[in-house]
Amino acid sequence: MIKLLGLPQDNNSSYMTGPALGPARIREAFVCDSANMWTETGFDLGDKTLWQDLGDVDLGAKGGSEAFAAIHDAVLMTLKDGHQLLCLGGDHSVAFPVIAAHAEHYGDLNVLHIDAHPDLYDEMQSNPFSHASPFARLMESGRIKRLVQVGIRTLNGHQREQAERFGVEIHEMRDLSGVSEIAFEGPVYLSFDLDALDPAFAPGVSHYEPGGLSTRAVLNIVHSFKGQLVGADVVELNPHRDPADITAMVAAKITKELMGRLLTDAHAVSAAIR
Amino acid sequence: MIKLLGLPQDNNSSYMTGPALGPARIREAFVCDSANMWTETGFDLGDKTLWQDLGDVDLGAKGGSEAFAAIHDAVLMTLKDGHQLLCLGGDHSVAFPVIAAHAEHYGDLNVLHIDAHPDLYDEMQSNPFSHASPFARLMESGRIKRLVQVGIRTLNGHQREQAERFGVEIHEMRDLSGVSEIAFEGPVYLSFDLDALDPAFAPGVSHYEPGGLSTRAVLNIVHSFKGQLVGADVVELNPHRDPADITAMVAAKITKELMGRLLTDAHAVSAAIR
Amino acid sequence: MIKLLGLPQDNNSSYMTGPALGPARIREAFVCDSANMWTETGFDLGDKTLWQDLGDVDLGAKGGSEAFAAIHDAVLMTLKDGHQLLCLGGDHSVAFPVIAAHAEHYGDLNVLHIDAHPDLYDEMQSNPFSHASPFARLMESGRIKRLVQVGIRTLNGHQREQAERFGVEIHEMRDLSGVSEIAFEGPVYLSFDLDALDPAFAPGVSHYEPGGLSTRAVLNIVHSFKGQLVGADVVELNPHRDPADITAMVAAKITKELMGRLLTDAHAVSAAIR
Amino acid sequence: MIKLLGLPQDNNSSYMTGPALGPARIREAFVCDSANMWTETGFDLGDKTLWQDLGDVDLGAKGGSEAFAAIHDAVLMTLKDGHQLLCLGGDHSVAFPVIAAHAEHYGDLNVLHIDAHPDLYDEMQSNPFSHASPFARLMESGRIKRLVQVGIRTLNGHQREQAERFGVEIHEMRDLSGVSEIAFEGPVYLSFDLDALDPAFAPGVSHYEPGGLSTRAVLNIVHSFKGQLVGADVVELNPHRDPADITAMVAAKITKELMGRLLTDAHAVSAAIR
Amino acid sequence: MIKLLGLPQDNNSSYMTGPALGPARIREAFVCDSANMWTETGFDLGDKTLWQDLGDVDLGAKGGSEAFAAIHDAVLMTLKDGHQLLCLGGDHSVAFPVIAAHAEHYGDLNVLHIDAHPDLYDEMQSNPFSHASPFARLMESGRIKRLVQVGIRTLNGHQREQAERFGVEIHEMRDLSGVSEIAFEGPVYLSFDLDALDPAFAPGVSHYEPGGLSTRAVLNIVHSFKGQLVGADVVELNPHRDPADITAMVAAKITKELMGRLLTDAHAVSAAIR
Amino acid sequence: MIKLLGLPQDNNSSYMTGPALGPARIREAFVCDSANMWTETGFDLGDKTLWQDLGDVDLGAKGGSEAFAAIHDAVLMTLKDGHQLLCLGGDHSVAFPVIAAHAEHYGDLNVLHIDAHPDLYDEMQSNPFSHASPFARLMESGRIKRLVQVGIRTLNGHQREQAERFGVEIHEMRDLSGVSEIAFEGPVYLSFDLDALDPAFAPGVSHYEPGGLSTRAVLNIVHSFKGQLVGADVVELNPHRDPADITAMVAAKITKELMGRLLTDAHAVSAAIR
Repeated sequence: MIKLLGLPQDNNSSYMTGPALGPARIREAFVCDSANMWTETGFDLGDKTLWQDLGDVDLGAKGGSEAFAAIHDAVLMTLKDGHQLLCLGGDHSVAFPVIAAHAEHYGDLNVLHIDAHPDLYDEMQSNPFSHASPFARLMESGRIKRLVQVGIRTLNGHQREQAERFGVEIHEMRDLSGVSEIAFEGPVYLSFDLDALDPAFAPGVSHYEPGGLSTRAVLNIVHSFKGQLVGADVVELNPHRDPADITAMVAAKITKELMGRLLTDAHAVSAAIR
Repeated sequence: MIKLLGLPQDNNSSYMTGPALGPARIREAFVCDSANMWTETGFDLGDKTLWQDLGDVDLGAKGGSEAFAAIHDAVLMTLKDGHQLLCLGGDHSVAFPVIAAHAEHYGDLNVLHIDAHPDLYDEMQSNPFSHASPFARLMESGRIKRLVQVGIRTLNGHQREQAERFGVEIHEMRDLSGVSEIAFEGPVYLSFDLDALDPAFAPGVSHYEPGGLSTRAVLNIVHSFKGQLVGADVVELNPHRDPADITAMVAAKITKELMGRLLTDAHAVSAAIR
Repeated sequence: MIKLLGLPQDNNSSYMTGPALGPARIREAFVCDSANMWTETGFDLGDKTLWQDLGDVDLGAKGGSEAFAAIHDAVLMTLKDGHQLLCLGGDHSVAFPVIAAHAEHYGDLNVLHIDAHPDLYDEMQSNPFSHASPFARLMESGRIKRLVQVGIRTLNGHQREQAERFGVEIHEMRDLSGVSEIAFEGPVYLSFDLDALDPAFAPGVSHYEPGGLSTRAVLNIVHSFKGQLVGADVVELNPHRDPADITAMVAAKITKELMGRLLTDAHAVSAAIR
Repeated sequence: MIKLLGLPQDNNSSYMTGPALGPARIREAFVCDSANMWTETGFDLGDKTLWQDLGDVDLGAKGGSEAFAAIHDAVLMTLKDGHQLLCLGGDHSVAFPVIAAHAEHYGDLNVLHIDAHPDLYDEMQSNPFSHASPFARLMESGRIKRLVQVGIRTLNGHQREQAERFGVEIHEMRDLSGVSEIAFEGPVYLSFDLDALDPAFAPGVSHYEPGGLSTRAVLNIVHSFKGQLVGADVVELNPHRDPADITAMVAAKITKELMGRLLTDAHAVSAAIR
Repeated sequence: MIKLLGLPQDNNSSYMTGPALGPARIREAFVCDSANMWTETGFDLGDKTLWQDLGDVDLGAKGGSEAFAAIHDAVLMTLKDGHQLLCLGGDHSVAFPVIAAHAEHYGDLNVLHIDAHPDLYDEMQSNPFSHASPFARLMESGRIKRLVQVGIRTLNGHQREQAERFGVEIHEMRDLSGVSEIAFEGPVYLSFDLDALDPAFAPGVSHYEPGGLSTRAVLNIVHSFKGQLVGADVVELNPHRDPADITAMVAAKITKELMGRLLTDAHAVSAAIR
Repeated sequence: MIKLLGLPQDNNSSYMTGPALGPARIREAFVCDSANMWTETGFDLGDKTLWQDLGDVDLGAKGGSEAFAAIHDAVLMTLKDGHQLLCLGGDHSVAFPVIAAHAEHYGDLNVLHIDAHPDLYDEMQSNPFSHASPFARLMESGRIKRLVQVGIRTLNGHQREQAERFGVEIHEMRDLSGVSEIAFEGPVYLSFDLDALDPAFAPGVSHYEPGGLSTRAVLNIVHSFKGQLVGADVVELNPHRDPADITAMVAAKITKELMGRLLTDAHAVSAAIR
């Protein structure tokens, strides 16, 4: 069963707070009467047996490693109970404890990371757990089999070096010709930062990096990459910059289709076993 | 001659009112000094012999079937006088009386329907004339030769069944590969719901369904589908959600190009006759 | 060395003032902490030896030909000192004195003009120096070798005649199939009007003309047209219509990539000489 | 103990939906880190012994009398358990079941109603339970001792008659000179419609009626009317018109001060008993 | 009978166009279903015998003195037919021909002018008919008995001199203590510029001058100044800066109350005659 | 001579960055063509002999005590040169070094502090130099003769204790009756936080605390408190929340009137000496 988990944390953001309000707004959009509960791939998410909302991890006044431990443990416990997770951020720093827990549970884990930024900084503003650094931390852990990034358009010298050092496979926005061929062996975790989208499609983010993906391009990747999706996150919604809640609706739409993909891949696996 | 007709009705909207204000705002954008009056296909709509604004159908406090009868009669009378119609909504429920009148006048009528939603509900909120149902009503009438839908991304179980039952041809957003091949024999009516566009291009609508068409993609369809356009509508502008009137400008642009297409096809027909 | 020059003038605008505020907002976005200073092509614009900001041309209360003379002289002097220029508008009328100075300096000059409008009016509102006319003035000067326009979607009868008279090569939005083949011999000046972009990507402009380019499509042209870029401008930002400064961020992004292209082409030239 | 109760209903709204989203947004603003949890009168609402959030009444797909019964019963049960209630709307129609339950529990009940509209329509759009009618229903019940209205500026002929018939005491916006003298004997319920405020202070409402109260004027009434407050509601927040959540912040501020007043009056009563 | 007349002109604006769109938006707000048609003083403007909408003066491409002549003649003709006028701007330059026609018709005319600016410039940007100058032109005509200004907060040296020269009575925002005593003998024309309001109450204007009147303060003046109102205007709505149409609603509210005052004063006069 | 000094720092903000962009936006509004350069008290700030813009203190990547030292030294040097200072923030933390330098220069210094918050926290988020703490630091220094606060509406237990400990005189928003009597002996520094204003008047701030002052109420205090103004600041403009730059216009207006007051008081002093 898919478990939806909110991670309302944004104190590792370098530029602007707001993402802590994200989970509540995505849930609101998720059930908004202006849309319906079916995925484009034919699942009725109005069916309560398909998924359950676990609410938010209680972070209270926790920050830094304490908050990360709480997130990590909540995720790992859910995985051990045999469920799949769809996490709603929060800023991208939460991807570190979430993906680390998946890597522990699944062993060799592939990560498909859709973002404007590689998030490979060794540290930012003296914070090694900054939202600019989670993938550096994950690659250092040695537990990620492959990291494939899509939508990147802010590589600087330092991050190019980090990418080479860690063997990251990057599909920059400048050349997306290889995106339709993305294929993995083994379990895949998909981490989606809303600023991968062009700000025209997702104004409600802290970092505007024009020249990004369209919502449809992201949905195409979600629907069509080859591999078995086992978990995912949608992060960096900033409601302070989302006047008519358009970006919350985008986040909810992508969340729905990620759920559809999780259901499709879980069915395929259980069918193969039978 | 093309007649422009406003249909300021929104009391069949399921989620949010506003579209009744649409015709006034589209007209305002149509003559806005920031643009000019030529279509991309070379017609000068500043030429008063090409089209005329009939103003709005007076709906007063009319609702339900009474309003529909008033719309139907106004449309049919105009068609009988030998004119082409371009209707400005209003919510999409108005498409039922408008297209029904066209079908009566033209006999076998093809409909090209560009929308995020199939609008095939048997009823919504106990209202069989809801803006979610006009195409169910039309298909039941038996007068529509073919219904081709483009941009759809909200099919649920019920609507998939309705589509199969009525033989609707659907080009979902997930796979638009067939769109450039759309071709009709006989007269074609084009019904354009602004929410077919991605909310990035058309924020001024009641229902946000991310992952939609670009404005240029819609213009390409208007310019290039094969068949003879005889009438059209542009519906579901919601000025309450259109702060800088961008969506009104989009509606006006598409209205202009639809007029251009109507003129092109009328010329071709009269040339063929001669 | 690249020199950045602000041209805060908007008194030749036909519809709405605002662009005079543009240079300040683009500079603000250029150094905004939410992004970094590297181009997608690998130049670190944080390196102070690569470019310098000259500030704004002091136009004070100057208007008309007096303002144009001040702009022209400032540009020509900088070119004679051996620098490249990137000018920030201001409305598009400033392109006339800026490009005229380049043509004087370089002799035969190619111009790549990305815009929704051809800006070829003989005059507008009795103003021959209107922002709707700079390219008419330039073509009449006889100093422009080739004028290639991309993104055009507002041709009317008068401007089509002007285009034919001047031999302008136009890639209309309706058919961009030839854009990837654009190639020049000799020096190229690129003039970029933000309204070439669809208003979804650039709401902060005075004239909304839906159905335009995406930001990525413009970046692709900047990165890939064949020829040697020697100067450029980014014009028509209207901060009055840019609530969250998204369009300023777009202008800054394109400015950065234009700088990267100027650096690439200057390196290629100096390498060829050696 | 004060119990906070959300009433997410808006299907009795005559003009625009949205208020069903109100409770979630007010709660979000209530705990927003940009403010603190103390009332101006010196209570620390961070103290968990002072109040508790009961969440929302589950209205599901309920409408009309069924929804009203659910609200009425939830309120009455809480009152019988010895608690005070602060209800968050929803549209103003919810005031009928909420206040009716208070009147049942307290016997003779005074109502202080702050609003732009008297909400005394016999019915609106054929709906006797419309958000324009709750105080007509309440007065007909014979259980309201006095109804005092403040901020009214939309009296028409019908509502003036209703007000006379029911003996409503109205302080119109045109003459607020008596407001500082408002005094009640016995328990008082305060019903606050956010559109009592001028739209400058509360843009996030469905009905704009310029010329209203300032936020401070409302706080002054909350702090200073004479009488014993026993219950209150804050209704008609429409998040669709509240881009930067300013109105949600206003609603949360007034909610805090209403809690402070409830605590003050409860203390005074228990002190008097001892 | 009161005649409503639209004056969609803004080509005498010094800073920003937009007011030409004002009449359409005020009419839209005037009949908006979210409010009702009664004035606070008890007139039902839904009664079609009380007023009539004459539509807009057709200004076409007219500018300068030609447009002014058209406005002047339309107004004078209506006055001669025995009607009262309520004009909707347009920028404030239209007040010159409108008030001049009233002065011609009524002989000695008092003017009550509510505005942030005295509009007494001898000329602005070489335009003697600028929206910054109408009251200089009127005072020079010698036909204005008294000019009383309220809300002024932008007096500079030149305008102070003009005010002294013409004997203008100014109630600056700094000291409004005399406003409740304003009294006239003989007919009064009221000219209301929306920027008299603080931008908090009226964001939809071209010139922001903080520290202004509240909407209620303006309504108080409309309701209570002593004298006989014979005509009025509401000008300078700029829809480009009025995202949720709040300012249009303010303009409509003040228009309604001005109509109520015109009706009250006309009744008083005809009663006195009888 | 008055010197204008920008302090573009916001890294001591607890909730939201943005104020570092403030100085540039206030300057832009200060010279905006939509207003003029005269104060309400009759000074022409277009006269270049009255004041000079020193630009921004170069804070580069400086933070904490290093940035404070740079600000302190720049201010003290200017004071020693015999000038008056008007500082533009930046967040309110900058008031500590600015006022400390004034206290050093003037000896016994009175401070008039207009704000929603007392800013007396011993520390916030472990940062003793937070924007919530400057007045705690100043009072501890022993150099402030009197601290008078106006507009306060967020006192909690801790800050009430701090206020008592330091002998701060507070005019809470709940009771402004004493504000018109404020009088000082000796030099006065005025520190103005834009969030003292109600968010209706100043939406462009990080912390919304409804129930605040109107812009006119603040101007009245600036014009009328008794004492000799020697320096002032305007802080906490957050352009990220100021879509149409209304708050920047408010900040510029108050800055102009503060300059007028500085000029008035300096004239009075030099007149008294003569």
